[in-house]
Formats: sequence, structure tokens, C-alpha cells
Amino acid sequence: MPTHDPSGADPEPSPSSLEDPGLLPFLPLLYVAWADGSLEPDELRLISARVSAAQGLAPAIRAALQRWLDPDRPPSATSLQGLLAAIRGAAGSWTASQRLNLTALGSELARRSGHVVSAAELEALRAIEEVLGVAGEEASRRLLAWRRPAPPKADLPSGFDPLAMTRLLDGARHELREEIRRLLSEPAFRPAAELSRAEYREQVLAGCRELAARSYGHLSYPTSCGGANDYEAFLAFFEILAFGDLSLLVKFGVQFGLFGGSILQLGTQRHHERYLRQVGALELPGCFAMTETGHGSNVHDLETLATYDAENEEFVVRTPHDGARKDYIGNAALHGRMATVFAQLHVGADAYGVHAFLVPIRDEAGNVLPGVRIEDCDEKMGLNGVDNGRLWFDDVRIPRDNLLDRFGQVSPEGLYTSSVPSSSKRFFTMLGTLVGGRLSVGLAALSASKTALTIAVRYTDRRRQFGPEGLAEMPVLNYLSLQRRLLPRLAATYALHFALHYAVRQFLETPAEDRRQVEGLIAGLKAIGTWHATDTLQTCREACGGQGYLAASRLPALKADTDVFTTFEGDNTVLLQLLARNLLTGLRKQFGDMSLFGLARHLAAQAEAAISETNPVVTRITDEDHLRDRSFYLAALRWRERRLLKSVARRVKRRIDEGMDSFHAVNECQDHLIETARAHVESLVAERFAEGIDACSEPELRQILEILLQLYALWRIEADRGWFLEHGYIESGKAEAIRRVVNKLCRELRPQAVPLVDGFGVPPAWLPPIAL
Amino acid sequence: MPTHDPSGADPEPSPSSLEDPGLLPFLPLLYVAWADGSLEPDELRLISARVSAAQGLAPAIRAALQRWLDPDRPPSATSLQGLLAAIRGAAGSWTASQRLNLTALGSELARRSGHVVSAAELEALRAIEEVLGVAGEEASRRLLAWRRPAPPKADLPSGFDPLAMTRLLDGARHELREEIRRLLSEPAFRPAAELSRAEYREQVLAGCRELAARSYGHLSYPTSCGGANDYEAFLAFFEILAFGDLSLLVKFGVQFGLFGGSILQLGTQRHHERYLRQVGALELPGCFAMTETGHGSNVHDLETLATYDAENEEFVVRTPHDGARKDYIGNAALHGRMATVFAQLHVGADAYGVHAFLVPIRDEAGNVLPGVRIEDCDEKMGLNGVDNGRLWFDDVRIPRDNLLDRFGQVSPEGLYTSSVPSSSKRFFTMLGTLVGGRLSVGLAALSASKTALTIAVRYTDRRRQFGPEGLAEMPVLNYLSLQRRLLPRLAATYALHFALHYAVRQFLETPAEDRRQVEGLIAGLKAIGTWHATDTLQTCREACGGQGYLAASRLPALKADTDVFTTFEGDNTVLLQLLARNLLTGLRKQFGDMSLFGLARHLAAQAEAAISETNPVVTRITDEDHLRDRSFYLAALRWRERRLLKSVARRVKRRIDEGMDSFHAVNECQDHLIETARAHVESLVAERFAEGIDACSEPELRQILEILLQLYALWRIEADRGWFLEHGYIESGKAEAIRRVVNKLCRELRPQAVPLVDGFGVPPAWLPPIAL
Repeated sequence: MPTHDPSGADPEPSPSSLEDPGLLPFLPLLYVAWADGSLEPDELRLISARVSAAQGLAPAIRAALQRWLDPDRPPSATSLQGLLAAIRGAAGSWTASQRLNLTALGSELARRSGHVVSAAELEALRAIEEVLGVAGEEASRRLLAWRRPAPPKADLPSGFDPLAMTRLLDGARHELREEIRRLLSEPAFRPAAELSRAEYREQVLAGCRELAARSYGHLSYPTSCGGANDYEAFLAFFEILAFGDLSLLVKFGVQFGLFGGSILQLGTQRHHERYLRQVGALELPGCFAMTETGHGSNVHDLETLATYDAENEEFVVRTPHDGARKDYIGNAALHGRMATVFAQLHVGADAYGVHAFLVPIRDEAGNVLPGVRIEDCDEKMGLNGVDNGRLWFDDVRIPRDNLLDRFGQVSPEGLYTSSVPSSSKRFFTMLGTLVGGRLSVGLAALSASKTALTIAVRYTDRRRQFGPEGLAEMPVLNYLSLQRRLLPRLAATYALHFALHYAVRQFLETPAEDRRQVEGLIAGLKAIGTWHATDTLQTCREACGGQGYLAASRLPALKADTDVFTTFEGDNTVLLQLLARNLLTGLRKQFGDMSLFGLARHLAAQAEAAISETNPVVTRITDEDHLRDRSFYLAALRWRERRLLKSVARRVKRRIDEGMDSFHAVNECQDHLIETARAHVESLVAERFAEGIDACSEPELRQILEILLQLYALWRIEADRGWFLEHGYIESGKAEAIRRVVNKLCRELRPQAVPLVDGFGVPPAWLPPIAL
Repeated sequence: MPTHDPSGADPEPSPSSLEDPGLLPFLPLLYVAWADGSLEPDELRLISARVSAAQGLAPAIRAALQRWLDPDRPPSATSLQGLLAAIRGAAGSWTASQRLNLTALGSELARRSGHVVSAAELEALRAIEEVLGVAGEEASRRLLAWRRPAPPKADLPSGFDPLAMTRLLDGARHELREEIRRLLSEPAFRPAAELSRAEYREQVLAGCRELAARSYGHLSYPTSCGGANDYEAFLAFFEILAFGDLSLLVKFGVQFGLFGGSILQLGTQRHHERYLRQVGALELPGCFAMTETGHGSNVHDLETLATYDAENEEFVVRTPHDGARKDYIGNAALHGRMATVFAQLHVGADAYGVHAFLVPIRDEAGNVLPGVRIEDCDEKMGLNGVDNGRLWFDDVRIPRDNLLDRFGQVSPEGLYTSSVPSSSKRFFTMLGTLVGGRLSVGLAALSASKTALTIAVRYTDRRRQFGPEGLAEMPVLNYLSLQRRLLPRLAATYALHFALHYAVRQFLETPAEDRRQVEGLIAGLKAIGTWHATDTLQTCREACGGQGYLAASRLPALKADTDVFTTFEGDNTVLLQLLARNLLTGLRKQFGDMSLFGLARHLAAQAEAAISETNPVVTRITDEDHLRDRSFYLAALRWRERRLLKSVARRVKRRIDEGMDSFHAVNECQDHLIETARAHVESLVAERFAEGIDACSEPELRQILEILLQLYALWRIEADRGWFLEHGYIESGKAEAIRRVVNKLCRELRPQAVPLVDGFGVPPAWLPPIAL
């Protein structure tokens, strides 16, 4: 072996040797050996040894090869470049077929230059290629055509008409929804230029005024107050408005849904007549002042006081200490003139629990009224077009009439009456009437998820990065890892759509006094739906890379604006615990009641509920047809829910039986309770989605929706496969098979991904440039 | 049974009946029966029937009870209030012990009024209480003392000194880190008032100037250029600066780390001498112009051209089309005067791949130079104090000297030379020198996680909401569900701290040419660490509820600013795939090489690697000592990594053997590859944490850190228990036991949560009011 000459004399193989036609067949192999940059010296020596051992090679060729394969004397960058130039020169305009390995490529190059490869050369070529161990066909492509265009995309039939999908999703109020989509495309409602917070707040107020002027403000109010008495329309409006600016949406919701809704639901006819027309026209901007700094989730124990003064027939509203200030109140910092204030009602020595009172906070000129103190919440993560603020009341006097007295009345003399004797039950009955707000948040989260998925799917469908060696780069949505991130969330968004629309129908059809179960349904869907939105938005942001970080992509605002959805209208973790407790009591207890000492008597029934046994054969079946059949996955989700409910009931019961305080008994099982509620909601979502598919009369839509249902359900089962394995519902092979089917479903859906997001019907005016 | 009288005459039990001392023992039961609000009519009738059946009750008492228990005639709110008043009146100043059920309470009340409860009464009391089925002791507390203060918190020893923990975490550069903490507490570096984007950008520039003036800019530069030649100090500085404003951090990183670092790492002595002093003093603000709109992850194929013009000894830099504009470039929109531009070097007909060039973009007055076009990226999700922009070059000519030529040189005549012949290997060698930037991002993400956890833990330690019936509300961090969300992430943050500091040492101690393994380590920790930050910040935001949504909590800015960490300095998904491929090739291939056709020859060894068998006894052991022992959880994490590696190698190999293109073969296994890389990093993090603990000489710290290690490792195993069950490494009972131990570890850590976050040493000047 020649010694290494560090001086640089004859440091590399001579480019002139490339002219020897006998060397030509070897050039591709030599190039790849060096260009790959990862051959170890030992490997180069092994190749060299094979060359030496090859019989019948011409000595000059053998020497040249050995020179090129000397690990101690690597070729220079220029020589390597020369090698490539020689290969491409020999190839001329000819391009290799994809099925050519390096040996075949070299032989063909030699043939085209008039050199016939000898058997000895062929043997040496094969020996080298074997040691090199590369995928020769890909290497050939690299050599001959650095980045050829990709073959034209097979023109896959879209399979269904996205507009038909939109009609299906829109349902009965399709025309109204289309009207709102057109509204969002009008210049006044299109995405605004960058604004300061002060400008943004005024713009959002102006938007609300315009919506009120067009009679959208009082959709849900009685016709006697100028309204349309159409809550379904209100919800449809809210859902579609959520494709647009979310500050406008939330300000709209605060004014017409929460403030107006509190008057509608908690007040009586005289309140309706006196206020709702003004509220719906936005002539009386108002607030919904429930939350206090010290009491968010535990509203039952908020501390603002409203004490009845029989002498003056007034209530005296008072913030007893700083922690009892009203906080995060929309419309309070700037525009609200009146607030529905939730306070503990005291009449004489008696406390009757939380009631709602109308308290004027500003005069018509916008001056803050005496005894009221207001502070701005200033900058928030998002929703900065909404003027949230804090309110303090320093013995503010309001007329007796300002008690919203549907559920509790105080006579002039100070006699309290109520149709609901228990103050706890009364409180939750009141809250129950406001559950439409929680449902609205769920719908808004759904729309935000749809917008984000539309952006991310449309962008990644065309964004190209990397690709097979020598071919054009590939759309990133063709990568399994990205499909895995986006497509199950697309499926879940469809599933949640059907479940939330089911909840809307239940809500509209169920009389208020019968709503326990609907309240549980709404609480669960709000929690799961808003967490889904947070998760989906984050996924979409990351899928769009740097583009997703720019405000121009809309994703930052969508993320920031919706982030609080997991917290407001009920903290998700608290909501799921309430739902779980309701399930434990067989949905018989008032939804939202946090008192626990009555829980024990319900536990026994749940703890002893019979659950069908797992079938040892079914736990092992792994064929795709079985896994994609509703009889498998719907049953699995149902079984999980019932099994969890039974086991958590047992755990809580055991602790209480052993003398533990029920509060602590429940706390020790909190994760288990939340898991139970989540399982309940996931099962319900799949069932409602399946029902929705069955009700669809268009076969093309049914077909694609069924695949989405399979993906949703199997993705949820896969995510919790630990639990299913632990409980013997599936075996290892089946878990593995489920993962394979999830991958396969992603690939099946890939070509339909764009039509599927188009089916959501997000107005193009609200799609950013990267999604157009 | 009396008929219901809808007229309202005698509609409810007479309050006067309450005066009968014989009724006194029953009052608590009657109150709870109605106040709970959830008794069904059937249940009330059952109680009534028991009363009827009770022998020896006085007829008046029996009648009164039946009247009170009539489901058709519920008491009014006032009667119910009267009942409560009567109970509290009878109790006077006496408060029940916690062990009093309702029967005992009633009896005691009667006794105190001079009435001795008869055997018949006692029997009736017990019968009623049994049907009622409530937790009587809690109900008693509710009756007698609505919200008693909580018992004083047991004064648990803090167990360790947070300052000692800070010293341990800081390590060798503790003094330097303390100096930077003091710096962050100076008025000039404290959190700023709300600013417009324009003002914010100027403030951040001013901050960078101040840091440069104090000699922090050139910590890592050679002493011959005015620097300290101390990369360790640079990293320590960066890590602590990340407790403060992240725009300042990123602008600092762009100028001194990326721009200066590119000159330092890719340039040669003449570049160092000519530029680094000015760069370090911020007299020459610059950009790092690598990413293009069309090429983010696939930098290898970026399209900006730098063509050598031998006649004029110049390079001509050109943006060939709009997709090749430089994008998201920090310092470009406003302040940068020069940019390190990454471009494809063409010399004559030959292309030598990506090289870096110094291109002036603005003159000293800030005017954009001819041929350069600059656009502002405008509003971003976060980091709005950094002026990101886009750059186009229209045949901009730069002197030959401006090629940063450490790895490739062009002679005046146009002869290209390089110590690295393969252009692919050269490219990844160049990139490898810049890996310090990726490490810095990992450290910054770690610091952001620490800040967020400090805020959330300190807030939830004191924030009270709900509580056991009749007792004060409980700090929300006492709830298992919140412990479950915050404490494992606290443990993971500690674990990542030790792993990242290990990576820093490896990086500093390993010569650049030997860094493949360190690059893999850094890529993995960057991906896992930045995802951990995103996840932790979201969790902390939600844990703080509405407070977490206000800008004043700092959490919105922390979330928005760090969100891009998952994307920049390498998209996390891409990084984990690179890491996985490196693992497949036994860490022998150049890190970051995306070409795959050489992969096949490495797969066989991995696919056949022997993995120790699972031990059928160990898979079943569930006792706590075993689960909390390193020999269990470290081995489990290691086993998972090796097993995944082996199986993914097999899957890829099978596809390639069957003739599939290696690109598609890898794509089909992408989720598996990512899972493998994640498993590798999680195992490594646990191992490095364990090593760090062993090196600690203070027993109190070692003890608490060991608990954190247990929680981290078991939490990761629990999260992936599906996989462990599937592969028979654990059995069902063991999975269940792991969950129990995770809960237990959370409870154990709860009292130490505040000292543990204090140990991070986040400067109090950067903690928001809710965390003070």
C-alpha cells in the first residue's frame, strides 16, 4: 500500500484516468463510494481487496481503481466533481430507467461509449456494489438527474362533492349559514389590518352594532321584544360567525348571549319587556358579571353581597374584599352600561344563595356611576378586541325590581319566595338555564378547528420538502408522520361536528327542567371539543412550520383566541369531574352540584353494574374487516366507559365505606373520574357520528364519512391501547393490527383530505394566502 | 295520603311545629333531605313509610314528619331556611365534632334542649338516615359551620434548601449565573410596559447594545478578537437570559450566536479578525440567512445561487425565484447591515453545494443596498421584539473574500478546493459546527419551562377552590388532578436539566470532527425539550385558569414566544427522524444526511441485535420498592429503546429487500422511527439524571432528586404502558401498580413543590404578581 504523502504531491487519482473507457463502467460506483461520505476506511479497503481479487481485470484499470479507493488519499472535491461530469457526459441526454442498479448503469454508460464490459469487469462491478450496499437504483437516479420533476399526480377522483358535504353538515339551517358565510365575506367583516388594542376594541364594537342593525342580535329573544324566538338560528349564527374574527364572536356572545340571555332566562316578563329590545339593538351594552377573582369554578361560593333593604325597597350590592371583585368581565372595561351581577342574596338574617341582579355601571355618556369601580384587564393572550375588566361595588343601591326573579322573589316587605326550596338546587337550576353559552363555546371551538385544519391541510397538500433520491420533492402531506398528525384530527373534527349538532337538537327539544342529561352532554362535549381545538391548532401550527408562526397564517390568532375556551364557561377539568359524578349517580343528581355527601347512596348500583365479559376469540381477531366494523369499535368504546364507571364507583365507595370524607375519597380518584368522563364522551361522539352517517342519504358522502368514523374510533382506541390491553379487551397482536389499520386509513384518506376540509365550508375570505 | 292543594292553602309544614322539642332530633335529617335537592319522590315516600312503621313515636311527631316528607308539598325556601335557623339556634355556640352523623347530631341537639331521645325516636332517626344515604358527618359540618377555617397546615419540613438546589443546578458557573440573575433584576432588563411592535423592537435592540457594552456579546469569540473564548460562559449566559424577555434572548442569539457564530465557525482567521470585534460590540448588526420560503428543513436543496465570476474575483448572489427568497430572517427587517447568506456555490459548470457568504445588505445609515430587497415579516405569534424579514438578491456582487471558506475555498482563478471531497459530507460538516445554536434553543426551552412551572406551582399552592363540606376551601395544588398535571412535568424539567447540562459538557469536550454522536444527542434533546416546553406552558396556563390568560401572568408571552422553538433550529419531527436514522446506522453516518440509499447496508446489524428476554417473574412484580428502584425503570426504558430500534430496522429492511425505494420504505415506518428516537431520548434523559444525582454530595438534595427521577421515569412508562403491555414487558397488574405509584409520588412531592420550583432560581423580578 502506498504511504500517505502529506505534502500533497500526487495527492489524488488523476482525472486523466477517467478517459480510459475500461474505467467507465466503474465510475458510478466510485462516485457513490465517495459522495455518500459515509464509507469507513475498512470498507474502502475491503472494496479494494475485492478489486485485487477479481480475475482478468486489465492492470491499468486495477491500479486506477485501487488508487481511487485508497482511504488515505481521498479525491479532491474537484476530482469528485470531475467524476460526476464524466458520468453525465457519457450519459448524454439518455436517462436511466428507475430499475437500474449501479452495475447496470456503469455497463450501459460503457456500452454507449463503445466499450463492451467483460465478464471479469462485470464480476468486479458486482463485488464492489455488494460491499457498497447502497440502494443502487436510487443512486442511479441521483447521478443522472438531480431533481427530476415528479411524475404527474394520478388524477384521483375526488370521490364526493365538497358542496354536498357542506350542505349535509349545515343541515336544516343551510341557507342561514350560507347567508352568514356571505356576510363574513363582506368588506366590513373581512380580516382587518393590524390594529392597536384600542382600535381593535372599537372595531369589534362597530361590528357588533352592524350585526345588531341587521337583526342578528336578538335572534333568540321573544317576538314580543322584537326578537325571532329562534335559538336554533342563534346557535347556527354563532357557529358560522366563529369562522371569522373571534373577538367579534365573543363580544357578540357576551352582549346578546350572556347579558341578554341572563335577562331572558333569569328574569321575568317585566325584565324582558323593559330591556331585551334595547339589548338586542345594542342600545344597552351590558356585562355578565359572575366570575370573581377568588371564585371562578366554585361560583356557588362567590362572595359579592346583595342585601335587601326593605325600608327603601332596594338591594345593596357590595364587594366585601378585593378577592370578591368581578374579574375577566367582557364589555366591562369600556362599553358596558349595565351588568348582570351574581351575588349572595341576604334578606334579614337569612342567606338564600346566589342570585342575579341588574346593576347599572355607566351612564349614557359612558361615565362610571358612583360606588362602582372599574379596572381594565389590559392585554390578554388573545381576544384583545374584547374589553374585559374588573368591577367593584361599594354599597351600590339598586331597585328591588332589578332582581332577576324567575327562580326567587323578594316581596317589598322582605319575604323571600321560590319555586325551588333548596338553595343549592335553585342555584344549579339557574345555572342550567345558561347552558346555551357553554354549547356556543363548543360550537365555536369546532369552527376554529375546522378553519385551522383547512389551512394546514391545504398548505401541506402543496408544500414540498425532500423526496426520493433524484425525484422532485414530495408534498409534505404525503409523509406518514404528517398524515398521522393531521388526518385523525380531521376525522375527530367531523365526529365532533355530528355530536355537537346532536347536542344542539337535544338542547332545543328538551324542556329546561329536564335538562340534567343534556347539561352533562354539553359539559362533556365542551371540554373534549375545546381541548380538541387547542390540540388541533397546535398541531396545525407546527405542521405549517415557520409559516404557521406568522400572523399572516391566521394560526397565531386562532390559537391565542381559542386558548381560553378550555377555561371559560366552565374549566374543562372541573366539567369532566362533574360529568363523571353525574354518571356515578346515574345522571339523577342536579348537574353541577359540587356537594358530595349525597354521593354515597348512588355508588353501590354503579359499582355492581354487570359488564359483559370479553370474548377471548374476539380479543385476538386482527383482520382489517373486523377492526373496521362498527360492531368492534363502537362496542369497545362502550365497554371501556362502563368498565371505568364501575371501577371508579368501587374505588370511591371503598374509601367512603372505610370512613374517608367523600371529598377526599373523590379527590383520590380524580384522575380515574376524568378518564371515565372522557371515555363516556368519546363513546358518545362515535355513536352520534355513526347515527349521523346512517341518516345521510347520499352514498358518496356516507362512504367517506364511514372511513372518518373508523379512523376516529380506532385512533381513540389506539391512544388508549394501554387500557384495553390492561383489561384484556384486546391482545398484543390486535393492538399492533389497530396501529396498522390507522396508518392505512390515513393513506386512504390522503387523496380526499382537501375535499374534506373544503366540505367544512370555511369562507375563502377568511383563509390566509398559504391556504388559497 | 293528603291530596295536593294547588291553591296554596296550608301548602307547607308549619314553622311552628319546629318548636316541639320532640321534633328537634329530626331537624337535621329533614333539612338535609330537602337541601340536598336530589331526593326523588319515591325516596321521600320510602322515608315517610319508615316513619309510619316506627313503633312508639308520638302521633304529633309522626304527623309533623309525614307532613315534612310529602313530595307533593315541598317546604318553601323560607321554611327550609327556618329549619336551618332552628338547628343552629339549638346548637348555639357548640360545634359538632367531625365524627357526628345526623342521628347523633339530632340527638345531641335535643339533649341540649332538655329532651331525651326515646328508643323509638332513635330507631326512626336511624331508619331515615339509612334511606337518606348521605355521608352524615359531612352533612353535620355543613349544618353547623358553613366554611370553618381549615385546620392549620402541618408545618412540614421543607426537606432541603432551595438555594443549595440552585447551586447544584447551576454547577461550575454558579457565580456567572448569579451575576446574570442580578442583571435581569436591574431596571433596564426588567419586564417592560406594553409597547407597540416598533417600540418593542427598538427596546430589544437597546437591550442587546447594553449587553454588548457589558462584554456579553463576544463571550465565545477568540481573545484575539476581544472575546473571552469561553463557549461555556456563552451557554450559561444564554440559559439564564432565557428567564427574561425572550425577544431579547433571540435577538441576542441571532447577532452573537448565529451571525457571529457563522463567521467564527465557517470563516477563517481573516474573517475573524476583520469582523468579530465589530460583531461582538454590535457595531455590525447582522443576519443568519439560511432558511428560504421553499426550503426550511431541506436546507441542502436551497436555491439561492452564488456564482463565481473569476474575471472580477467576485461572487454573484442571486435569488432565482420567489420561493428562494430568504425568509423569517432575524435582524433583517430593520437592523441588520450584513447577512451570512447560504447559497449553492457554482464555479464554472460545477456545483459544489451550499456555502456561506457575507453579503452587505444595508449601509451604515441603514439604507438598503442596491440589488437587495427586504420585506418585513410583520406580526408573528410571538418574539415581536425581533425584526424578522425576507431577503431577495438580484445579482448582488461581493468580493471573493466574502466566502466563509473554512471548509471550501475558491482560488482567484476559480479553482475549488476543500478538505472534504464529498459535497454532501461537506454540507453536513458545516452545519455540524453550528449545532451550538440548537443546543441554545434547548436550554432556552428549559428555562421557559422552569419559569412557567414556578408561576403555576406558586399560584396553585395558594389558590383555593372548593373543599370538604363545611371546611375552608382547599389549595388547588392539593387536588390530585392538578398534581398529576404539574408535578410530572416538574420532574421532567429537572430530568431535562441534567440531560441538557450533560449535553453541554459533551459538546464542549468533543472536538468538532467527532461530534456525530453529540449532534444526535443535541437534536434529540432539542426536540424533546422544546415539545416539553410547549406542553408544560399549555398545562401551566390552564392550571392558572383565567389568570393564566392575562398578559400580566407572563404565561401568554412565554407560550407565544417559545412556540416556534419546536420549528426553528430544526423542525422537531425532522430532527427525531434524523436521530432515528443515525441510531439505525449505529451513529456512524454523518448526522443530518437525508440521503437514504446508503441506509440499507446498516440495517441488518440493527435488525438482528439481540435483546435480553423479558423475565416472566419481573413482569408481574408490583411492589412499590421494586417499581421505585432504578433497576426496574432504567432497564425498562433501555429495553424499549433497543426493542424499537430492532423492530424498525426489520420493518425498513423488509421493504427495501422487497424492492421498495428506501425513501418510501422509511416513510412507511415514519411513526415507528419517531417513536424509536423518542424512546432513545427518554431513556437517555433518565440515565443522565441518575448520573447527576449520583454525583451530588448533598444527601437532602439527592433524596428529593431521586423521587423526581422515579416520577419522571414511571410517568414516561405509564404514558407508554400500551407499548410495554403489548410487548409483554409488564403485565396488567403491574401497569395498574405503576399508576398507583405515580399518584403516590405526586402526593409525596406536593409539600416540596414550592421549594422545588424555587430551586430553579428564576429571578423574582421576572415572576408575575400571582406567583409572588
